[in-house]
Amino acid sequence: MSGKANFDHASATPVPPEVVEAMLPFFTDKFGNPQSVHSLGHEPAAAVETARTQVAALVNVRPQSVVFTASASEANNLAIRGLALGAGKKGKHVVASSIEHLSVLNPARSLRSLGFELTELPVDKYGRVDPGQLEQSLRPDTVLVSVQHASPEIGTVQDLAALSSVCRRHKVILHSDGTAAVGRMPVSIPDLGVDAYSFAAQSFYGPKGAAALYLAPGLKAAPLIEGGIQEKGRRAGTENVPAIVGMGKAAQIARAQVGEWQAHLDKLGRRLLAELPRRLEHVVMTGHPFERLPGHASVCVEFVEGEGMLLFLDDSGFAAASGSACTAKTLKASHVLLAIGLSHAVAQTSLVLTLGKDSTEEQVAEFLSVLPPIVARLRAMSPLYARLLKGEDPYAGTACDDHHHEEDN
Amino acid sequence: MSGKANFDHASATPVPPEVVEAMLPFFTDKFGNPQSVHSLGHEPAAAVETARTQVAALVNVRPQSVVFTASASEANNLAIRGLALGAGKKGKHVVASSIEHLSVLNPARSLRSLGFELTELPVDKYGRVDPGQLEQSLRPDTVLVSVQHASPEIGTVQDLAALSSVCRRHKVILHSDGTAAVGRMPVSIPDLGVDAYSFAAQSFYGPKGAAALYLAPGLKAAPLIEGGIQEKGRRAGTENVPAIVGMGKAAQIARAQVGEWQAHLDKLGRRLLAELPRRLEHVVMTGHPFERLPGHASVCVEFVEGEGMLLFLDDSGFAAASGSACTAKTLKASHVLLAIGLSHAVAQTSLVLTLGKDSTEEQVAEFLSVLPPIVARLRAMSPLYARLLKGEDPYAGTACDDHHHEEDN
Repeated sequence: MSGKANFDHASATPVPPEVVEAMLPFFTDKFGNPQSVHSLGHEPAAAVETARTQVAALVNVRPQSVVFTASASEANNLAIRGLALGAGKKGKHVVASSIEHLSVLNPARSLRSLGFELTELPVDKYGRVDPGQLEQSLRPDTVLVSVQHASPEIGTVQDLAALSSVCRRHKVILHSDGTAAVGRMPVSIPDLGVDAYSFAAQSFYGPKGAAALYLAPGLKAAPLIEGGIQEKGRRAGTENVPAIVGMGKAAQIARAQVGEWQAHLDKLGRRLLAELPRRLEHVVMTGHPFERLPGHASVCVEFVEGEGMLLFLDDSGFAAASGSACTAKTLKASHVLLAIGLSHAVAQTSLVLTLGKDSTEEQVAEFLSVLPPIVARLRAMSPLYARLLKGEDPYAGTACDDHHHEEDN
Repeated sequence: MSGKANFDHASATPVPPEVVEAMLPFFTDKFGNPQSVHSLGHEPAAAVETARTQVAALVNVRPQSVVFTASASEANNLAIRGLALGAGKKGKHVVASSIEHLSVLNPARSLRSLGFELTELPVDKYGRVDPGQLEQSLRPDTVLVSVQHASPEIGTVQDLAALSSVCRRHKVILHSDGTAAVGRMPVSIPDLGVDAYSFAAQSFYGPKGAAALYLAPGLKAAPLIEGGIQEKGRRAGTENVPAIVGMGKAAQIARAQVGEWQAHLDKLGRRLLAELPRRLEHVVMTGHPFERLPGHASVCVEFVEGEGMLLFLDDSGFAAASGSACTAKTLKASHVLLAIGLSHAVAQTSLVLTLGKDSTEEQVAEFLSVLPPIVARLRAMSPLYARLLKGEDPYAGTACDDHHHEEDN
C-alpha cells in the first residue's frame, strides 16, 4: 500500500513508529490495569495520567478536564446525551447545526424520545452558522448548543469565538466537535470559549481507539457508559492504556509540529483550491473560500458519479473520499452538502481531499494531472452530461431525488 | 515488573508477542479506515471480518452475530440499554441478579429514569441464581433478564442452561456477562441458550480496547453510540482495527488452547481452595465450592483489612485483588459479597485470586507460604482480632457499617 498517495487523511492517518514504540510496552510487560491496588497497575496508571497531560497541553486545557473515550463518535455521544441529561431541570431544548457529524446529530435527534426538542440550525451557503441566527434559536429552556469547529466534508471553519460569546451571554453550554480541526491547526480551547470539545487521536497521527472529550471545570455530563469508576466516574470500562499512551505521545509531537504542518497543508491545499476550478469545467467548490481547514479541498464535480471517481482515482494511486468517513459506504448524498443548498444530483458528485503532513507538492501536481482525464471518462458515460452537450437542462427529471431526505443510519 | 507473580488475571492479562505482531501492521502500513471506498480501506475491512470470524468461533456462533465494542463495560451497557429500549411496546420490566458487575447494574438502574422497573434478583449464599426464583420474578411486561455467566469476584458459575430455559419458556431475552468465563473454560453460546453475551479480549490475552457483544439473529438492540454505519448500525465510531485484529488472533489461540488452560487452572485453583482454609484460621471461602471458575479462589480473611493484605502481598511479589477490578480503588465493600450475605466487616477482608495460563505450581506454593505470616502481621494490628483473642465478640459495634449501603458510582 506504500505506493498509494493518501488524500483522505480525514478517514485515517498512519501512526508513526515512535508512537507505536511508546505503546508497545503496555501490551506486554506493563499490561496492568490502572485501577489495580497492586504495583502491576502503577506504571499503567501513571502513563494514562502522563498522556492526559500531553493531550490537555495540545488543546491548552488542564488535564483533569480531559475524559478519554474510544472514539470521537463516543465523545460526541457522551457530550450530547450526557450534557443534555446532566442539565437537569433547566430545560429540554437542544440546538445543533444541520451540518454536524451524525455522531452529534443522531444522538441529538434521539433525545426527542426523552422529551427534548431539537432545533437544527441552518447554515449559509459556505456552511457557516450565523451568530445572530444562533442567538434567535436560543430559548429560556435551551441547555445545549453543538456546532462543529470545522467540517470534515466541506472544510469550513466556524467562528467559534463569536458563537461561544452568544452562548455565554445566554448561559447555554456550547459543545464543539473538533475532530477535523485538531492536528491541522493549533487549537486553544480557552480562546474558542467552548465548554466541551471532542477530538480523536487519529486526527493527529495517533492510534485508533483513543479520543477525548474536554469538559469545562464543573460541567456535569451523565456517563454514556456506566459501571466502574474509571475517568472519575465519567466513563466506565478498563482504560485502553496502549491507545491512550499513543494518543499522548502523538499529542506531544503534534503540539510541537502543528504550526509547521499547518503551513505545509495550507500551501498544498491552496494549490488544489486554485487549480481544481481551472482544470475542470462545471465544478462547485464547497465550503468557505478562505475560512477553511488547511490542506482541505472539497468540490462537486458535476455529471460525475462520486464513487466512480474514487475508484478511478484509486486505480491511479490516490485515496480520496466523497462525504464523511463514517457514511462513505452508504453512498447517500451527504446531509452536509444538502444543508448548504446543493441538489441531490450535485451532492452525489462530491470529492473531498484531505492532505496530511507527509503529502508532497509532487503528489498534488500528479493529482491535478490525473483527475481531469478521469472526469472526462466518467462524463463520457453520463446521461446528464450528454444532455448538457445537447444544450438541454441536464438536471431535468432528477429533482425527484430531492424528495428522499431520510437520513443515514 | 517481570518479577511479579500475577494472581490478578481478572484485572489484566499480558498480550503475547504473536498477538502484538498481528496488530502492528494495522498501525502503520495498513492504517486505513474500513469504511473507505478506496483501497487503503480494503485490507483493514477484511481484517476486521477475519477477526469477527475468529471471535465468533471461540464462542461457537456466527460472525454476523458479533458486535465489536471497546470494552466489556460498553458491551454490557449496549446490551442492557439497547435491548431494553429495543423491546419497544412489549414492556418496561428488567431483571438482573444482585451480583452483576456494575456495568450491568448501573445502566439497569438508570433505565428507571426512562420508566422501567428493575428487579434485582437475590442469590443464594454461593452466589447462584435459582431458576425457580427467576421464574417467579418474570412478569408479562418483562423484556430482559441479565445474569452473569461467572462471577469475577467469587468465581461462581451460574447454571445458564437452566436459566435460559426459563427465559425461553416465557419469551424473555436473556443477556449474560461472560467476561469472567471466556478464556478460562470453553464457552459455547448455543449450549448456554442465551440471547446476548458480553466478553472482552482481555479475558483471553487479547488487547485492551476490544470486546464483543453477541446478539442472537434478529435481536434488535438500540445503539448506545450513534452516528456512522459501522457494525451494521449497531455501534458507531471508527473500528479500532489493530485491537480488533488482536482480539481475533487471541481468540484463535484461545480456541485451540482453552481446554489445556482450563485443566491447568483447575489444578492450581483447587490447590488454593484446599490449602487456604488449612493454612489460615477464621476464613470464609466465598462462592460455590465446585461450580466455579477454574483457577479462581476467593476468600474473606477475617480481621484483616483487604487493602493492607494486597499491599503486603505486592511487597512479597504477588499481584492480587479484593473485589472487582473496576471498583478496586473505591475501597468499598463489594456489593457482591454483601449480596451473598456477608457483613460489611467481613466483606472488607476479601481476597480474590485469579490465576492465568502461565501461573505455576511453584508460585502457588510460594503464595501459600507467604500469605499466613502477612495475615498474622495484619491481625496483630487489628482491634477486632484483639477482641477475639480476649474472648469478646470481635464484631460488636461494627454493625453500623451495614447501614451504608449506597452503591459505587
